[in-house]
This record gives sequence, C-alpha cells and structure tokens, in this order.
Amino acid sequence: MPAQRADARRNYARLLAVAEEAVATHGADASLEEIARVAGVGSATVRRHFPSRHALLEAVFRERVEALCARARELTGRADTRAALLEWLGAVTADAATIRGLAVALTRDRAAGPDVAHEHCCSAQLTEAGDPLVRRALDDGALAPGVTVADLLALVTGIALATEHHPDPAAEAGRLLGLTVAGISPHQG
Amino acid sequence: MPAQRADARRNYARLLAVAEEAVATHGADASLEEIARVAGVGSATVRRHFPSRHALLEAVFRERVEALCARARELTGRADTRAALLEWLGAVTADAATIRGLAVALTRDRAAGPDVAHEHCCSAQLTEAGDPLVRRALDDGALAPGVTVADLLALVTGIALATEHHPDPAAEAGRLLGLTVAGISPHQG
Repeated sequence: MPAQRADARRNYARLLAVAEEAVATHGADASLEEIARVAGVGSATVRRHFPSRHALLEAVFRERVEALCARARELTGRADTRAALLEWLGAVTADAATIRGLAVALTRDRAAGPDVAHEHCCSAQLTEAGDPLVRRALDDGALAPGVTVADLLALVTGIALATEHHPDPAAEAGRLLGLTVAGISPHQG
Repeated sequence: MPAQRADARRNYARLLAVAEEAVATHGADASLEEIARVAGVGSATVRRHFPSRHALLEAVFRERVEALCARARELTGRADTRAALLEWLGAVTADAATIRGLAVALTRDRAAGPDVAHEHCCSAQLTEAGDPLVRRALDDGALAPGVTVADLLALVTGIALATEHHPDPAAEAGRLLGLTVAGISPHQG
C-alpha cells in the first residue's frame, strides 16, 4: 500500500509542522484538537501518529533540537566564521524559550515514569553540534579567548529565561543577545 | 527599659545576619533551629522577632535588596563611573540567585493570601537605585548607547538562572557576567 504509506508520511509531517507552530505560540499547553483541525486531519489520525500528548510534544521537542543541530552543521562550512556563529546563536535564542518549555513539560509529565532528562540531552546535542562553529570562530580570533559553546548556551538560556514574561520575548531576547555579543561595556577603563 | 531594648535590637540584628548567611548557603529552606543556635538565642526569642518563617525570609529579602540599593547610592559618587557600575553589577550578580530564591519562596507561601509580588517590587527598587549609575556611565561613554538598567538587570537575572545548578554558581555567574561586559564577540566582522 505505497499510496497509503505516502499519505501517512504527509500527515505526520503536516501534523508535526502544525504542532511546532502551535507550541511556539502557545507553549506546551497547545490544544491537540486545534492542531488536528489546522492540519486538516481527524483526531483518530492524530492518535495513530501520536498516541499521547506526551508523544506529540516529544516529537516537536526532538524536531526543534535536531533542526538547530542541522543548522549548526550547515553553517560550519561558511567562510565568515563570526557571522556563522552569530547566526546560529540567534537561531538558538529564538527557539530557546520554546525548547525549554517543552523540556520542562516533558520532564514534569514523566515524574512518575523514567526520567528522560530532556534538558541534559538537548544541551549535550547542541553542545556537540555548536562546538565546531565555536572552534572555528576562536581560531579566527572572532570570539573572546576561552569562550566555550557551554558558556554561549548558558548565556542564551539565561536570556530566554529572563525574557519569558516580556510582552515580546523573541524581540527582547534578540536585543539582549546583541548586547551580549557586542559587550555592555567593552572599553577598558 | 533601654538596656532591654538595646538587647532586643542586638538580637534582631544578629538573627538577621545569621539568617542571611544561612539563606545564602541553603536557600529558602534554611533551618530556623540552626539559625537560632548559631545566633545563640532561644527559639522563643526567634519567634518574638519573627513570628513565622515567612516573616524571617521576608526580612532577609528586604535586607538583601536594601543592601544592594544602598551600595548603588554609595557607588554613584565614584569618579570612575564604569568601575562603579561594574562593581554594582558584580554585587547584584552575586546576590541575584539568593534574592530570586527568596522571592519565589515568599510568593509561593502567599499563594493563599495577598500576592506581595516580591519579584516586581525588588526589580522596581533595584531599577530606581541603579539608574543613576547607568546614566553616569552612559554620559561617560562607558556603556553601550541605549543600554538601560532594566537590560542589565535582565542579563544578570538570566545569568543567575542559567547558573543555579552549576557546582560553583557564584564563580560561574561572575565569569559569565565578565563575558557579557566585555562582549563575546565585540569585533565587527
């Protein structure tokens, strides 16, 4: 039944894309019914692909983290190592609040079951993917000596956490990232 | 009874100082019995000054925030406006995790009662106290144009949040603040 399998793949991809949008806007409390409606599928189809809300959030979480890792690999080939690193940090900052919200929701859901430790897993994946970008920028002198990918992820996570209640968290986080990149007071007194 | 009043004042000051140390080390879960023991007073004396655990945490919270505001006012007179601002930011960073822990604990305690909104009150007080330091540094060109005290408090809060599970949060937060001050990539590509 190749036609049915292709249909199922399309439904899965569409559901995931719609779920990603919904989670980016509404966080982990995004409505499953609304996701099914926007994706144009019935709730039985949703349930076939994602047996539980947890399974759907988990898929969105993995997809977001994997997309950022793919972006890092793609940017590692760029000649301008500073621009490549800053573009990646901007992408991580834009997604950090959503990813963290999902990690918290997934870890909370699992309080009774095995702890998947989403935050650690996500941070390990991003560290590995971002490391070549950081090393190349360091080699070019485009990054303060001694800065690690872990430092950058900590700063970005902090910015996401500090801006989560802001009226426009994405814009505010991007602005604070810009200040952190340029330095709030780079002059030596 | 002036002697008794002086005694009571000394006991209060000693209890508050010991409680501040205990909260800085153990967070809002610091043991009241241990605080009384270290301060060398009985639990009746503790209860006379602080009728509840909430009252003690509240006093420590106000004291910490007030000390940072006093520090800002004191530093505002300094000739080196950049050094003055950076010294204050360092002090805020060092205390941010403790102050936030207290604000969260106090707000949680009050879930059933009136919401004192400790985080907002603390942030308003620090904003007012730090504003002259920021303005003077801006006038001297020692701070990136357009940076506000709210930006700096957001960055410091983010650093405190991102480092709270680090083995040595104070050292790590201070290091990340240093990177933010100098810029992680201040060169223009």
